[in-house]
Amino acid sequence: MTKAIFLIQTEDKKGLLASVVDFFYSKSFNILHCQQHTDSYEKRFFMRIELDASDMSMTRKELYDSFNDLATELGLEWSLHWTDYKMRVAILVSKTSHCLYDLISRQLEGELDCEIPLIISNHPDMEKVANQFRIPYYYFPVGDDKKAQEGKIRELLKRFDIDLVVLARYMQILSSEFTEEWKGKIINIHHAFLPAFQGANPYMRAYTRGVKMIGATAHYASEDLDQGPIIEQDVVRVNHELTPNGLKEVGKDCEKRVLASAVKAHLEHRIIIYRNRTIVFAVER
Amino acid sequence: MTKAIFLIQTEDKKGLLASVVDFFYSKSFNILHCQQHTDSYEKRFFMRIELDASDMSMTRKELYDSFNDLATELGLEWSLHWTDYKMRVAILVSKTSHCLYDLISRQLEGELDCEIPLIISNHPDMEKVANQFRIPYYYFPVGDDKKAQEGKIRELLKRFDIDLVVLARYMQILSSEFTEEWKGKIINIHHAFLPAFQGANPYMRAYTRGVKMIGATAHYASEDLDQGPIIEQDVVRVNHELTPNGLKEVGKDCEKRVLASAVKAHLEHRIIIYRNRTIVFAVER
Amino acid sequence: MTKAIFLIQTEDKKGLLASVVDFFYSKSFNILHCQQHTDSYEKRFFMRIELDASDMSMTRKELYDSFNDLATELGLEWSLHWTDYKMRVAILVSKTSHCLYDLISRQLEGELDCEIPLIISNHPDMEKVANQFRIPYYYFPVGDDKKAQEGKIRELLKRFDIDLVVLARYMQILSSEFTEEWKGKIINIHHAFLPAFQGANPYMRAYTRGVKMIGATAHYASEDLDQGPIIEQDVVRVNHELTPNGLKEVGKDCEKRVLASAVKAHLEHRIIIYRNRTIVFAVER
Amino acid sequence: MTKAIFLIQTEDKKGLLASVVDFFYSKSFNILHCQQHTDSYEKRFFMRIELDASDMSMTRKELYDSFNDLATELGLEWSLHWTDYKMRVAILVSKTSHCLYDLISRQLEGELDCEIPLIISNHPDMEKVANQFRIPYYYFPVGDDKKAQEGKIRELLKRFDIDLVVLARYMQILSSEFTEEWKGKIINIHHAFLPAFQGANPYMRAYTRGVKMIGATAHYASEDLDQGPIIEQDVVRVNHELTPNGLKEVGKDCEKRVLASAVKAHLEHRIIIYRNRTIVFAVER
Repeated sequence: MTKAIFLIQTEDKKGLLASVVDFFYSKSFNILHCQQHTDSYEKRFFMRIELDASDMSMTRKELYDSFNDLATELGLEWSLHWTDYKMRVAILVSKTSHCLYDLISRQLEGELDCEIPLIISNHPDMEKVANQFRIPYYYFPVGDDKKAQEGKIRELLKRFDIDLVVLARYMQILSSEFTEEWKGKIINIHHAFLPAFQGANPYMRAYTRGVKMIGATAHYASEDLDQGPIIEQDVVRVNHELTPNGLKEVGKDCEKRVLASAVKAHLEHRIIIYRNRTIVFAVER
Repeated sequence: MTKAIFLIQTEDKKGLLASVVDFFYSKSFNILHCQQHTDSYEKRFFMRIELDASDMSMTRKELYDSFNDLATELGLEWSLHWTDYKMRVAILVSKTSHCLYDLISRQLEGELDCEIPLIISNHPDMEKVANQFRIPYYYFPVGDDKKAQEGKIRELLKRFDIDLVVLARYMQILSSEFTEEWKGKIINIHHAFLPAFQGANPYMRAYTRGVKMIGATAHYASEDLDQGPIIEQDVVRVNHELTPNGLKEVGKDCEKRVLASAVKAHLEHRIIIYRNRTIVFAVER
Repeated sequence: MTKAIFLIQTEDKKGLLASVVDFFYSKSFNILHCQQHTDSYEKRFFMRIELDASDMSMTRKELYDSFNDLATELGLEWSLHWTDYKMRVAILVSKTSHCLYDLISRQLEGELDCEIPLIISNHPDMEKVANQFRIPYYYFPVGDDKKAQEGKIRELLKRFDIDLVVLARYMQILSSEFTEEWKGKIINIHHAFLPAFQGANPYMRAYTRGVKMIGATAHYASEDLDQGPIIEQDVVRVNHELTPNGLKEVGKDCEKRVLASAVKAHLEHRIIIYRNRTIVFAVER
Repeated sequence: MTKAIFLIQTEDKKGLLASVVDFFYSKSFNILHCQQHTDSYEKRFFMRIELDASDMSMTRKELYDSFNDLATELGLEWSLHWTDYKMRVAILVSKTSHCLYDLISRQLEGELDCEIPLIISNHPDMEKVANQFRIPYYYFPVGDDKKAQEGKIRELLKRFDIDLVVLARYMQILSSEFTEEWKGKIINIHHAFLPAFQGANPYMRAYTRGVKMIGATAHYASEDLDQGPIIEQDVVRVNHELTPNGLKEVGKDCEKRVLASAVKAHLEHRIIIYRNRTIVFAVER
């Protein structure tokens, strides 16, 4: 069944829920799922609505336009998504394969409902993985001119009509031009429980600090490294038995799980960003 | 702020959400929080609505009656709760103190918003705890006439206008008359991850089976022991280092946490029972 | 560095630790890691010792023989393993790919230190996965003669010098001849938190029972289905939002993680079986 | 059964385990439990040994002295503890009761094997809790002379022969003289997952940063606030539904559990401190 999904946010005020629900009801839509959250601290209204779009009495453009009128009147920030469109995801990697294997196999199993038309890397190592799954692999080494290398990537993302960029342990800082252009469309996995251990070598630092749990954080990329809105986090318990390398190995599982979960939430249009925070709606499956 | 909370369920059909939301909107209520869930497998509609009731333009009875008209028309099962009423909770215990201490201290800290007018037991041991907190303690030993002992308890529950009975490690099976009369109003804590290890001595059996996690389950009491609707569960990781007694000790924390969480959900009117399952709505705090 | 690993168990008695430690000390071995556990409930002594074997003053056979003398004297059950031998693992699957992808990718990343010389199935579906990784795939449909089909599998396991069989969602019951012959050498993943939901369709039954967590259990296969010694378990929190299919999807992650962790413990010689329980030693990494 | 517990650490070298084990064997001690860990990254040897001391052929002083000779020879740092001595614990609190109730009730249930001869506070609020349990309560307000207030506390700790100080949400920074004098004998609970959100108001900052899990950390107090060796940590999953106050409430459970677990490990002589890290041995129960 094709669905239309609306993501809505605005300043909280009386009657918002009724107005939105009424709009769809008056157009004879069947609301499959409606989730609403008011942040009482920020006085902010958030909503996700799933409509049955399989048998519409109007065109998609008509729905868009008529909702736009309501949104203007109520001052809503909103977006509309159709589940019969498969998002196109570019995966960026460096030298490690665990997140890459994980994302591809989840996509093949249907858990991640998207297309993966290309893999991009600053190293040649992962080409063999790409070949196993017959996904085109682009290798752009970072030489003296980092700007130029990034330019090639950005050009490729456009040429391939990419909707979402996943940094699956891509160990390069992106320029602010890149993160600005792709705001809310680049998901990064950081191998620590942010905001602990921002920056490089988190497992070494976790060892030195003697923490009893290590974690991973998936977040939208922002200009300041590791400062963007967090989508998902998880941790695993560790103890004194683990060396820095042991922590790293144990952490891999956490990284895979957290990254996949964040990508899935994005693909299913369950995330709204407000300031530096995310509202991640659960979804019935 | 006083709130009115509606819990609603019915067979799923088109327009339910809009009808209910419209009702409150037309009466000028401010909807603070609206949660709706459709179980697509059971084709069942569930809803929890929180209204601002601090400045109502009608009496509580008028609200009840007018919603009743709508509910009859739409075929809703529903209940209405007011947050300015403090529920009255009776705690039943046997010989162990950990859940009892935990519930009382959470109530004193304001985490459990209720009154605890009495503690009932089939053993004298916990009277000292009751005295520390100046809560009346009733000791009814189970002698030859179990029915009579239960009769005394049930009589007391009525006399004290009890709304909820919490079995905080009360090691007696209740008669079906009791569980039937108090259906959906008795919460029990079982010291295992149900449906594993139903019945007696779960920690011993967990040891023998060599499980790697032990758990606890809070559920509404039903005629068949440990078969009622589950409200909350949790587990802790264990290993071969633990003897049956060690498992028991480690499990206590889990029992406390799970029982308190279930009682809290009940007190906050976040639970709907359907068949042998519960819908437990999260609540903004 | 090549290591020799001893796994030892016996009835507990005074001086066992000193006797064993002294033996290695007197032969000038460097003990890298020594883990000892006494089950005070069962009065049973368990031990795992890792020796530096990179520069031995005796042959492997001499070490084996001289330790055998001590073991006979002390009444030890024991085994000796060398880390420069890569165990050979056969993966058996039916129609689902998630555990298969997971095991293969972990092996490729070096997390599972073994060889995977073949994949066997009762269905043709997974051949495409096997081909991606160039692993020989054997398809033996279960026809009228189940015994014959199993015979072919067992014959193949011998021909390929297999050390460990992993049932990665292989949906067939094995005969008692098979499980007896391969006792302690077949690891199965059950898609539930055993002993809850033994047998078929655990996710459907978890839904009906309304549990708030679902889990997975990796265990050695035994004659009685799902009754063998448990190696590893884990759970994930679920709620009313999940249909039986949703539970299934969410459970996949848990299955992968639990199965991989159990296989890893086996490959690293960290498991001792006693009765129907396992001692799983943690290992420094 | 009375036990003698040795905690030992030193630079790693060949034969340490055998030397120590032999020592006890030659003195006819029964080793109940022996745990040894070598940190291969730091090249450091750690050990915990539990002896049956119920029927000793020498005095405690003789055991101490003869082991001291061995320790000098081998260059061991070590300590010896007897399980028939109940450690004396002072609890310091400010205004919140949840950790206080939790520690006291665990002590009453026998989970924390210690005496709690007094409670000290910089506020009068918790006196009512102290009275419920008939524990002497000392109220020292922090006025202009912070040094003097701390002096009174330190004097009291000596007068009461205190072995361990537990800061159960005591919201004052201690002077370096205090933490130096009581090094390794003050346990603090920090209401965040360190090193994230060091310092004040961690729940508010967790909200602003939009984290998806919040945690708690128990650590030995050191001169630099929240920088001491971590003993135990745990986290709970949170989501956008929680306001800063909601996070605080949810975090309480985590704080209680983590603090109690750390105190228990200390009371059971399971912790060795090395640099800024702890080795926390698991113990059979």
